[in-house]
Amino acid sequence: GLSSHRRDPELSSFVARTNTCGELRSSHLGQEVTLCGWIQYRRQNMFLVLRDFHGLVQVVIPQDESAEAVKKILCDAPVESVVQVCGTVISRPPGQENPKMPTGEIEIKVKKAEILNSCKRLPFEIKDFVKKTEAIRLQYRYLDLRSFQMQHNLRVRSQMVMKMREYLCNLHGFVDIETPTLFKRTPGGAKEFVVPSREPGKFYSLPQSPQQFKQLLMVGGLDRYFQVARCYRDEGSRPDRQPEFTQIDIEMSFVDQIGIQSLIEGLLQYSWPTDKDPVVVPFPSMTFAEAIASYGTDKPDTRFGMKIVDISDVFRNTKIEFLQEALSKPQGSVKAINIPKGIKYLKRKDIESIRKFATDHFNQEVLPVFLKANRNWNSPVAKIIVEEQSQGLSRLMETQEEDVVLLTAGEHNTACSLLGKLRLECADLLEARGVVIRDPALFSFLWVVDFPLFLPKEEEPGKLEAAHHPFTAPHPRDLHLLYTEPEKVRSQHYDLVLNGSEIGGGSIRIHNAELQRYILATLLKEDVKLLSHLLQALDYGAPPHGGIALGLDRLICLVTGASSIRDVIAFPKSFRGHDLMSNAPDSVPPEELKPYYIQVSWPTDSE
Amino acid sequence: GLSSHRRDPELSSFVARTNTCGELRSSHLGQEVTLCGWIQYRRQNMFLVLRDFHGLVQVVIPQDESAEAVKKILCDAPVESVVQVCGTVISRPPGQENPKMPTGEIEIKVKKAEILNSCKRLPFEIKDFVKKTEAIRLQYRYLDLRSFQMQHNLRVRSQMVMKMREYLCNLHGFVDIETPTLFKRTPGGAKEFVVPSREPGKFYSLPQSPQQFKQLLMVGGLDRYFQVARCYRDEGSRPDRQPEFTQIDIEMSFVDQIGIQSLIEGLLQYSWPTDKDPVVVPFPSMTFAEAIASYGTDKPDTRFGMKIVDISDVFRNTKIEFLQEALSKPQGSVKAINIPKGIKYLKRKDIESIRKFATDHFNQEVLPVFLKANRNWNSPVAKIIVEEQSQGLSRLMETQEEDVVLLTAGEHNTACSLLGKLRLECADLLEARGVVIRDPALFSFLWVVDFPLFLPKEEEPGKLEAAHHPFTAPHPRDLHLLYTEPEKVRSQHYDLVLNGSEIGGGSIRIHNAELQRYILATLLKEDVKLLSHLLQALDYGAPPHGGIALGLDRLICLVTGASSIRDVIAFPKSFRGHDLMSNAPDSVPPEELKPYYIQVSWPTDSE
Repeated sequence: GLSSHRRDPELSSFVARTNTCGELRSSHLGQEVTLCGWIQYRRQNMFLVLRDFHGLVQVVIPQDESAEAVKKILCDAPVESVVQVCGTVISRPPGQENPKMPTGEIEIKVKKAEILNSCKRLPFEIKDFVKKTEAIRLQYRYLDLRSFQMQHNLRVRSQMVMKMREYLCNLHGFVDIETPTLFKRTPGGAKEFVVPSREPGKFYSLPQSPQQFKQLLMVGGLDRYFQVARCYRDEGSRPDRQPEFTQIDIEMSFVDQIGIQSLIEGLLQYSWPTDKDPVVVPFPSMTFAEAIASYGTDKPDTRFGMKIVDISDVFRNTKIEFLQEALSKPQGSVKAINIPKGIKYLKRKDIESIRKFATDHFNQEVLPVFLKANRNWNSPVAKIIVEEQSQGLSRLMETQEEDVVLLTAGEHNTACSLLGKLRLECADLLEARGVVIRDPALFSFLWVVDFPLFLPKEEEPGKLEAAHHPFTAPHPRDLHLLYTEPEKVRSQHYDLVLNGSEIGGGSIRIHNAELQRYILATLLKEDVKLLSHLLQALDYGAPPHGGIALGLDRLICLVTGASSIRDVIAFPKSFRGHDLMSNAPDSVPPEELKPYYIQVSWPTDSE
Repeated sequence: GLSSHRRDPELSSFVARTNTCGELRSSHLGQEVTLCGWIQYRRQNMFLVLRDFHGLVQVVIPQDESAEAVKKILCDAPVESVVQVCGTVISRPPGQENPKMPTGEIEIKVKKAEILNSCKRLPFEIKDFVKKTEAIRLQYRYLDLRSFQMQHNLRVRSQMVMKMREYLCNLHGFVDIETPTLFKRTPGGAKEFVVPSREPGKFYSLPQSPQQFKQLLMVGGLDRYFQVARCYRDEGSRPDRQPEFTQIDIEMSFVDQIGIQSLIEGLLQYSWPTDKDPVVVPFPSMTFAEAIASYGTDKPDTRFGMKIVDISDVFRNTKIEFLQEALSKPQGSVKAINIPKGIKYLKRKDIESIRKFATDHFNQEVLPVFLKANRNWNSPVAKIIVEEQSQGLSRLMETQEEDVVLLTAGEHNTACSLLGKLRLECADLLEARGVVIRDPALFSFLWVVDFPLFLPKEEEPGKLEAAHHPFTAPHPRDLHLLYTEPEKVRSQHYDLVLNGSEIGGGSIRIHNAELQRYILATLLKEDVKLLSHLLQALDYGAPPHGGIALGLDRLICLVTGASSIRDVIAFPKSFRGHDLMSNAPDSVPPEELKPYYIQVSWPTDSE
């Protein structure tokens, strides 16, 4: 394969150094080297540590009179100044080796030194930088980027994307095609930025994804398309969302769901960093219905158990009133999750806050049940449950000594959703108390499939909206329901979930113009005129096709263990959408808006 | 190296075919294959030719009764319908091989066939498509993309970019870093699209290049950066310009001009299509002054001679009045180009139109001179010249039988500029008459260096503006002139020219904050507040750095021999900036503009 013949990149070609600071070892002893880097720190005018992107190296400041000029240069330069030194790689004196430093066996005996640029007093120390507030880090992003963590994250990102390209282009014949970002506003595109043109009243729009273009490329016979695509979404202020983001965008003709899934499994396996455990394929798959029933979410974190269990049968003949009531309703159920060793690790106030959360956000009761121990958690009903149905409950929940079962009753989806949230909340709580719930080295991939094609419209529940987008193909087994009970139709959409985060989603698309028209016009009541070019394209020999998009920022965030996607983006916006370094967005003089035929409509007091 | 171990990509992995249409050869005889493709044409209900991105293959329509269903499917389907066929690869009957078709030795004996999508009546035939008007091609771009030429161009583009990435990332340790496209408006950024934000009066701007970001990455220690960067430029309607375009954007620390040039030479050599002659490095280099003097342009087409020659010395003692007058002025000169076999190939009306062009656009006289032949071209002065200075002229211009010399007199730059234009014009004329002036297989690269750092401002010639951008470093040998005669300072800017087109440009940047402030504030009178983040960054240990950007669209256009950059872009805009397929830009209802605090200011009659 390609990778076995890979040679290490040359990191010092074309530039004024012979080596990087981080690469020197005992094998370089005696070599004359030229290094360029930043002064990390200086010790008693005897040593300084020089840093570049590759690592640190110790430089001995010469003390003999003949080298006074060099000594002065190296002792006078402020920390974080950029210097070039020429010298010899020598062994550190016995006992002075530093085993914690990759270059710790050697040091540089300097012959020549030059200050390339002196550094003014910094707003903070680079090495402690990760402790600064994020606002300061973003304001001085060019300094923040010097930190080990940012250098690492951006390099991992570059390398993973490069491997993905190799896999797609070189191994599987995909064509990297750039699609426009100045496009037409899509119907209902409330999250699309507008871009005024030089024609009065006419605007481009920055698309949320290349969805239309990738489908049109399939119609154009470009068979296997991919793009590392810049996308735009204007959602105002939201934590961990960026107004521009990047997706690995893929589309293929003549493919089915399994085909796309195998492609992506291979892609992640091939591009996965070699210092991590290899990715095991195929990934497990779960239907949307199973995901909701067992995890209360369509993006289950499958690194740990504590699954939701339906225990309705245990309580079919219960005398406890609120369980009776719940079970008497359609879709009514009793559900529970088991918190292992909950008695030991959860505090009384944890349980109280869990119950309060359930009431406040779900209008639901949650009962903590202790099956084996006999401890009073201020829950009178719990006692009754235990006496009445302890055996069945214990069997279904697979309880052990010291476990706590959290029980709720109500409509299936609501009960699952609540317990899904509590499951994650309790995992956090247990981990905060030192219990290992999620192995930090574990990457747990999961396909979620068989989503509904439509959902009731949030504002008008009598009407339908596309669960993902209106180009998603219906599940072939549910085609007949489209004309009778469309709300029951499953789709050929699939999501890829990693450790409880959605990192990708895609579908097999509709390639039949009639079906697409029926769904757009009759079921979704959209104005088909705005999509006439796409409908027309389907009429002219569109092949069956499907695709997927992976959210690159989120994926790299999970791979590097970064705490925010802002830590895997070179110049991110703040959560309010500002560039804190340059102060964007900024005002523009009215005369510069004139060529675009727009003016600012300032809000009045009444607004 | 990497490429020697490269294996061919798998073009049929993950999909419902076993092979592509274009790959089948005699070596596949007897194999059971499944193919998916478009019906290119059908011959007498006996054969059909199936097409996919990879090529064409002949399918035999079965004629026996048992296969009547298959026959019906294949005979009824309209041209450009998408079909799947399963069958066996068989030899064509002797004498029926088609040596012009790569798959011409075989055909497919069909067992099963399925129409995957039927095609409605097309607005034109795919195969003749390149002959359609460009407006029709852009309106039905998804059909135009099926043409051999568009498939080829987009694949060459993808492959060249992939090789560039391998060279930069895998061979030389560059880091692919994405920079924002929603940024702050730069001072005087009249060509930047504005993007309204949800804060009243505040706008993002779509930058013309990642210039500021790439420099800030160097300050951030990210040493070797590259990006295939989407850039934006709003110039209204201009032929062969796109509002969004792509550049290969590169920046390095600790590098000099030679370092960047070597990197780029290696990059182009490595990524050059293997079916073309290899790129020879290093590229020749020429100063800006030489380029103007010899070619009358800063982007000389060095595929052919016909260089501008200064023949002032021949005429020092001339009695011809207008030459005398020209030579008596400062910068006054007599210049000429030699049109080989001009007497044979140029017509009288060509000479007339050349002289008219010179008068209309340059207010200059051009004289045609015929040294060896004695033919009257309606130029009384020509005769006098020949008699008076024919020897000197003939020696300097290296004339041969039948050549025509075009001569002009005037200020150095004007005379060169005019003759540079006529040189290209005459090359076109000669080629139109069948003379090979420029070898179509020749790729002639050239570095142009030592540009002026500043130019007189177009509107206010007393003031200076940056010849390229204000971050360009001055030439070290001219540093002292910055404070006395800044208009004479040369820069460390370099352009890469290919066959007379500028395909790239870059420079060593200013890394000293004081120098940058002096140039911005004192020499260019810019508002430094708008660039305070960049100036501050230079204060904090900015390394010496430089970079370059290659214009990808133009480069691929030259490599593929496409007649317009629109032929190497999947979904280009028309020269008026319109997407003719989807009709962008389009109107947006006022209520959708409200969240952005803008409204349209419709032009009134008086405007």
